[in-house]
Amino acid sequence: MGDANGNSALAGQRQPQQQARRAGGLTDPVPYAAALAWTDAQAVPSEAELVPLADAPGRVLAAPAVAAGDMPGFDRAGIDGIALAAEATVGASAYNPLRFRLVPAGSSLPPDSAARVAAGDALPAGADAVIPPDALDGAAGCEIVEPVAPGSGVERRAGQAAAGATLLAAGRRLRAADIGLLAVAGIERVPVVGRPLLRVLLTGASAGVPDADGPLLRGLIERDGGVPADIRPLARDREALAAALAAPGADIILVAGGTGRGGDDHAAAALAEAGELAIHGVALYPAETAGMGRSRAGTPVFLLPGAPASCLWAYEMLAGRAVRRMAGRAAALPWRRREMTLRLKLVSRIGTTEICPVRSIDDDSVEPTASFAEAGLVAAARADGVVIVAEGSEGFAAGARVTVHLQGAEP
Amino acid sequence: MGDANGNSALAGQRQPQQQARRAGGLTDPVPYAAALAWTDAQAVPSEAELVPLADAPGRVLAAPAVAAGDMPGFDRAGIDGIALAAEATVGASAYNPLRFRLVPAGSSLPPDSAARVAAGDALPAGADAVIPPDALDGAAGCEIVEPVAPGSGVERRAGQAAAGATLLAAGRRLRAADIGLLAVAGIERVPVVGRPLLRVLLTGASAGVPDADGPLLRGLIERDGGVPADIRPLARDREALAAALAAPGADIILVAGGTGRGGDDHAAAALAEAGELAIHGVALYPAETAGMGRSRAGTPVFLLPGAPASCLWAYEMLAGRAVRRMAGRAAALPWRRREMTLRLKLVSRIGTTEICPVRSIDDDSVEPTASFAEAGLVAAARADGVVIVAEGSEGFAAGARVTVHLQGAEP
Repeated sequence: MGDANGNSALAGQRQPQQQARRAGGLTDPVPYAAALAWTDAQAVPSEAELVPLADAPGRVLAAPAVAAGDMPGFDRAGIDGIALAAEATVGASAYNPLRFRLVPAGSSLPPDSAARVAAGDALPAGADAVIPPDALDGAAGCEIVEPVAPGSGVERRAGQAAAGATLLAAGRRLRAADIGLLAVAGIERVPVVGRPLLRVLLTGASAGVPDADGPLLRGLIERDGGVPADIRPLARDREALAAALAAPGADIILVAGGTGRGGDDHAAAALAEAGELAIHGVALYPAETAGMGRSRAGTPVFLLPGAPASCLWAYEMLAGRAVRRMAGRAAALPWRRREMTLRLKLVSRIGTTEICPVRSIDDDSVEPTASFAEAGLVAAARADGVVIVAEGSEGFAAGARVTVHLQGAEP
Repeated sequence: MGDANGNSALAGQRQPQQQARRAGGLTDPVPYAAALAWTDAQAVPSEAELVPLADAPGRVLAAPAVAAGDMPGFDRAGIDGIALAAEATVGASAYNPLRFRLVPAGSSLPPDSAARVAAGDALPAGADAVIPPDALDGAAGCEIVEPVAPGSGVERRAGQAAAGATLLAAGRRLRAADIGLLAVAGIERVPVVGRPLLRVLLTGASAGVPDADGPLLRGLIERDGGVPADIRPLARDREALAAALAAPGADIILVAGGTGRGGDDHAAAALAEAGELAIHGVALYPAETAGMGRSRAGTPVFLLPGAPASCLWAYEMLAGRAVRRMAGRAAALPWRRREMTLRLKLVSRIGTTEICPVRSIDDDSVEPTASFAEAGLVAAARADGVVIVAEGSEGFAAGARVTVHLQGAEP
């Protein structure tokens, strides 16, 4: 830990801070767009894995799902009813009712006979139409009073999809109906984009203050398709942090706390020492002290401010984007966007991308509400959405149309 | 199993069908609104349970979450910087710079001294303002060249919420930021609406055809906040079905298959025998053969057609509504709705509520696509949403504005 000058611990501790400053540290925050570009360059979709259908809802298809055979694989009844040969009904009318004798389904139809079928049953040989059961006349037979068109009431082989057709495209996030479709197609396991494993190191907790960043980040990571595999508190100890950054087993590492100005930047210092601190300080409010870089093994590391509302937004705008991309999801914020009218003016600092909470006034308009600085996560709970004011903007006048990200509303 | 007339098995088997017909069976389908009203009358939110925060994302709060104490509980630094007494800066100017000596944080401030603090730290006694660290002048002190306002850079006790304030209302579906807020408030376990337990009996499978209703229903139940506790195939055997309907342990029972016309209605027959078949046959396309009733113990039972696309829509429009209500969620279909322009006409049978798949043409318009009858679940996969055409409507002309339920897009 010492150096040749005998200027031991102090020199060893100062170096990382200097490195951080050189790398564009807190004294000169980078624009949000630059932090975004760095993030997107790190995160590519994870390798595919095969999972059984029961585990596939919500996962992202890594390859197209293709019909192995025709769907359906044979002509079958499309309705519950009576299967018969359409040709045998030619000439039927109220004046010339034709009588068909009921035979058991499954066997082939003798002339002038019909068989009861349920929707989905294979047609008996010789049948090419299914009529509703209203024509039934007791248990023994039925009377037909108008001609039946060939193919009516029948689901044709390959009518849903022919062998080789794409059923679901790669990149689709699987919903329940898709899972049903894969089952219909006889597919039991599907290739999906792997879920990135996250290590979360909580270094910001103060004695007597409950940790909020852990529960917060766990929920966010799960929402975005990542696995919060390893969430743990860690002392504000640069060596312990460096060891946790270097340990294998994570696809993304998040460090909460220790990103501050001056005295409270142990996370930045540790990353500079144990890997590369690429960015420290982003012109993004309320997450100005966020940072990012790579462990020595190349794992992306995001430094999130410890204050919960700042931690939330550093995650949503930067780290979460990496999680979503690795999980094969859309990188954008996972909420619905809508143009709405701003009822009161919204002021924003020029030079900083600002996340401004807003509250719905009615179905088409919003007003600014208590900021994250004033109200922390209470602001998030009370807001219906946020407006993201770009770096070059001073905000919006009352009456402006703005894009509102409606939180809690997945797109 | 016999009766006094010696007309044993046959009489025993016929009776349930007759009961079904009397109760409004397939020959006389009830309007969708009536089936809906029956469903809503069965399903009330489940009893609350206390869960740890880690299990709470996505759950529905059963009671308001209230701040036990002030948030924050003390005046604290709102920024990283230097804490001092504002009063001591009166008169500071570029011509009259005032010098403050740095002392360790935590102790109370002697006159003309200041302390470094990180955002979130309690203010040292005597300090009532925090200024950015730019004023620092080496490690020993700082120079102030303008007066500081009391309270600047400080987060006041109770500034986010006062003790007793409601943080989150009952009925809120908890998102990650809410979980963080609960943690900030020191809440470790929250009361949430219980998840209804579902038993799913699969009676429709044909030999050689893979079961799709099981995987489909599992995904739908999980999406809606239910627990697919018991999903199992069951032979088309009325006695086995009656036993499975009577067994305790489920809040809702779904039976897939055996709802058809005439010969293939073993599910309806079993329910009539083992409880009450309230409705069999709903004027809802593609789920006309759906049914519902109660087991003898009073558990709501939904009979879903076996054909996967019909099973899907009987679930979405009826059974799923009961699951969502019991889980404390909104009863409506869990997708986003939007008014869009229909580019081609859409024809619907009068007298039936029809679910019509549509495909997006552009951001504001849709056109009808292959129906569920033609393409089964392939239709669901290829559609971007559905239009629900009410019973009294014959459909819509090209150019009409229609409400599109955008599937896969949670609201």
